[in-house]
Amino acid sequence: MTYCVAVRVDQGLVMLSDTRTNAGMDNIARFRKSFTYSVAGERAITLMCSGNLSITQGVKAMLGRAIKDSQLDPDIESILNCATMHRVAQLVGDAMCEMQHHYRSTIEMQGSGADASILVAGQRRGGKQRLYLVYSAGNFIEATEDTPFFQIGEHKYGKPILDRIVRRETTLEDATKAVLVSMDSTLRSNLSVGMPLDLTVIERDQFDFRVRTRIEADNEEFQLLSLGWSAALRKGFEDLPNVLG
Amino acid sequence: MTYCVAVRVDQGLVMLSDTRTNAGMDNIARFRKSFTYSVAGERAITLMCSGNLSITQGVKAMLGRAIKDSQLDPDIESILNCATMHRVAQLVGDAMCEMQHHYRSTIEMQGSGADASILVAGQRRGGKQRLYLVYSAGNFIEATEDTPFFQIGEHKYGKPILDRIVRRETTLEDATKAVLVSMDSTLRSNLSVGMPLDLTVIERDQFDFRVRTRIEADNEEFQLLSLGWSAALRKGFEDLPNVLG
Repeated sequence: MTYCVAVRVDQGLVMLSDTRTNAGMDNIARFRKSFTYSVAGERAITLMCSGNLSITQGVKAMLGRAIKDSQLDPDIESILNCATMHRVAQLVGDAMCEMQHHYRSTIEMQGSGADASILVAGQRRGGKQRLYLVYSAGNFIEATEDTPFFQIGEHKYGKPILDRIVRRETTLEDATKAVLVSMDSTLRSNLSVGMPLDLTVIERDQFDFRVRTRIEADNEEFQLLSLGWSAALRKGFEDLPNVLG
Repeated sequence: MTYCVAVRVDQGLVMLSDTRTNAGMDNIARFRKSFTYSVAGERAITLMCSGNLSITQGVKAMLGRAIKDSQLDPDIESILNCATMHRVAQLVGDAMCEMQHHYRSTIEMQGSGADASILVAGQRRGGKQRLYLVYSAGNFIEATEDTPFFQIGEHKYGKPILDRIVRRETTLEDATKAVLVSMDSTLRSNLSVGMPLDLTVIERDQFDFRVRTRIEADNEEFQLLSLGWSAALRKGFEDLPNVLG
């Protein structure tokens, strides 16, 4: 499985994904699920993928080919030259549609699932920061003020902390802490989600990545956060009143 | 959906269930999912059910009929007169099998799911305290020292706190707090799980219920626990080091 989470707060966008992929319990591999695209000072975009890996890799290949082709022929539309973030989501959705159209029936004939979903987060100069969730059918929804985060993959373990912490006015620092804590809970409770992690932070109106880093299993800051959270939970739990009289 | 959680620690057994049942998002009802059976000073048993309601109600009816019949004819075996807790789990599994055999194919023809699972927890005089999970096929597994808790239904939201807190040496007080906190996280993140709750506590070697109570939405102790946990999480989160430098 997979766990990807993206948050849109007033100050910017935070995206975090794990790297574990499995085809059955005995076939575990490591694949990057976060992909970044940028034109410095003009736009910065992160995609995060879950679901059938052949489908999402195909979508990525199509988007990449359009970017390459557009360098030779500027009339060709790509996620790096299209007009708006909304159009970026459409292009991702269109590529998803094409992959599903081509492979879905044969994948399902083999008894596998072809579903996939992709989070699209970013901002282009002249537009607002946007966060979209693109479904298998190519349709998509946008994160709003009421729902400032999206999760794909194994989302349930890490949802309670996001429900409690993340609001649109949450700082970028707290949003980053929140997605890391959310991931930490998921890593502890579900073997199909695994280190290392890929973290991207896009500050509002900067049109570039403030953070674009891989967090390895031995990363000291993440370990401190994880241990600190464990200790805080334990302490908080101990301090709770006893219900059993 | 449903969320039921049962913990077996050295000091005893703790069982907690919600009461929300739904057939689609627009058809929500309230049904008890915890059922208790006892012969004072000899045995105390709690069953908790999830899955297809007609199946689990049918299982419960069969178990109840055997108890009634055995009062007239002591040769008839029931969960209140059978030899061991292991045999109790077998009887529950046998009833499950019979219900599945009778209804599964017709239920599935209608496009519904017939799956169900039942947690069986208790102790009889002369035996150890036991916790079993009975599947749709009537087969079952037992909680061991390595895995001192079972969850059925919407289990993911509330798993992280159990993973961190519950060990076989956890006190009965802490185990009770832990299942309530686990339920609180689930209630906040999933609409298909709802108040009121049914809590049962069986202390080791007492062969009776120490607690057998319904916790309503306005229960002050539960509200305090819930608020306390919220505050502890928030405080713990604030105290975590910033990762975004």
